[in-house]
Amino acid sequence: MVVELRSWKVLERKSLLNKTPWFHVWCETVQLPDGRIVEDYYKIEGLEGVVVVALTQDRQVITESHYKHGIGEITLDFPGGYIDSGETPIFAAKRELLEETGYKSKQWISLGRYVLDASRGFGAANIFLALNVLRNSEEISSNDLEDTHLNLMPFEQVLKAVFDGKVKEIAVAAAILLANQYLYGNLREDIY
Amino acid sequence: MVVELRSWKVLERKSLLNKTPWFHVWCETVQLPDGRIVEDYYKIEGLEGVVVVALTQDRQVITESHYKHGIGEITLDFPGGYIDSGETPIFAAKRELLEETGYKSKQWISLGRYVLDASRGFGAANIFLALNVLRNSEEISSNDLEDTHLNLMPFEQVLKAVFDGKVKEIAVAAAILLANQYLYGNLREDIY
Repeated sequence: MVVELRSWKVLERKSLLNKTPWFHVWCETVQLPDGRIVEDYYKIEGLEGVVVVALTQDRQVITESHYKHGIGEITLDFPGGYIDSGETPIFAAKRELLEETGYKSKQWISLGRYVLDASRGFGAANIFLALNVLRNSEEISSNDLEDTHLNLMPFEQVLKAVFDGKVKEIAVAAAILLANQYLYGNLREDIY
Repeated sequence: MVVELRSWKVLERKSLLNKTPWFHVWCETVQLPDGRIVEDYYKIEGLEGVVVVALTQDRQVITESHYKHGIGEITLDFPGGYIDSGETPIFAAKRELLEETGYKSKQWISLGRYVLDASRGFGAANIFLALNVLRNSEEISSNDLEDTHLNLMPFEQVLKAVFDGKVKEIAVAAAILLANQYLYGNLREDIY
């Protein structure tokens, strides 16, 4: 069955709070497919970011532990950050991995682009898998505000950390699960 | 090695845009552990939501297809929505599943709570797995603005849809991957 899902019509759009490059809040007057008018539909344009699951040849994952002020807690994270103006997502992923960890890879796999909130349009995460990463430099030159503790952790242990509540951000949880599915996917016929 | 990761100190906090209950934008002056002062650290308080991976006895997943205005596109989604004031996450999950689909379950598993953006603190998704769901009512009473097309889809097909780019929101991708890992987890010793 094919069902037509029609898009909404934007009748008016006004800027409420412009904190570019970080975010920009808009209020839209929209018309729904059934004719109803909604006068205060809020959108928040956010930044595009990258998240990198970086695996060494012996399947250790480069992890970062740091305090994140948005949640006021320490969380297990991966290398990544915002895409700079003019950069492609893959370029930003390579740059962030090298800057934050000193590692490089010749094998990059895109695991997709996902918005953080499909209703408000807030930000997006581009998730990458980097295989057989090698240390290229001892120098780490992050501009991040956070103190970060880098670690190599077995793949299995990172997956367990998600279920133990140590991974507090959705894109990081999704990234290791996407990598797991891509690498060791269990889409076997026998379980269905 | 134990590394101390210290939290930041909030010196001042002012409201920039209050669109409660939807979101509230704040500007904080914070002091980092090394003494540096950041005068314009923005936080966006967002709503807590629930996402439900609902499986029938023959392992079909209840999916929703709808246009989401934040992205201006159609995306594959799961039942879910915002947690109402005073509700627990599990109560909201049961309510949303029944309201949006007419289905109920007696077996609920929490797959964790994850923030959408650990830097800004924007919103959070509480992810649940509901097993052996049964249709309780033909009546569906969603208050959502979106036209929604409900569908039962084999578990494997939903996983494939993630890799085919049909799932555009990070919490939905994370939810099916968490459910897959929980149900058919491949943390086998032999692959490490």
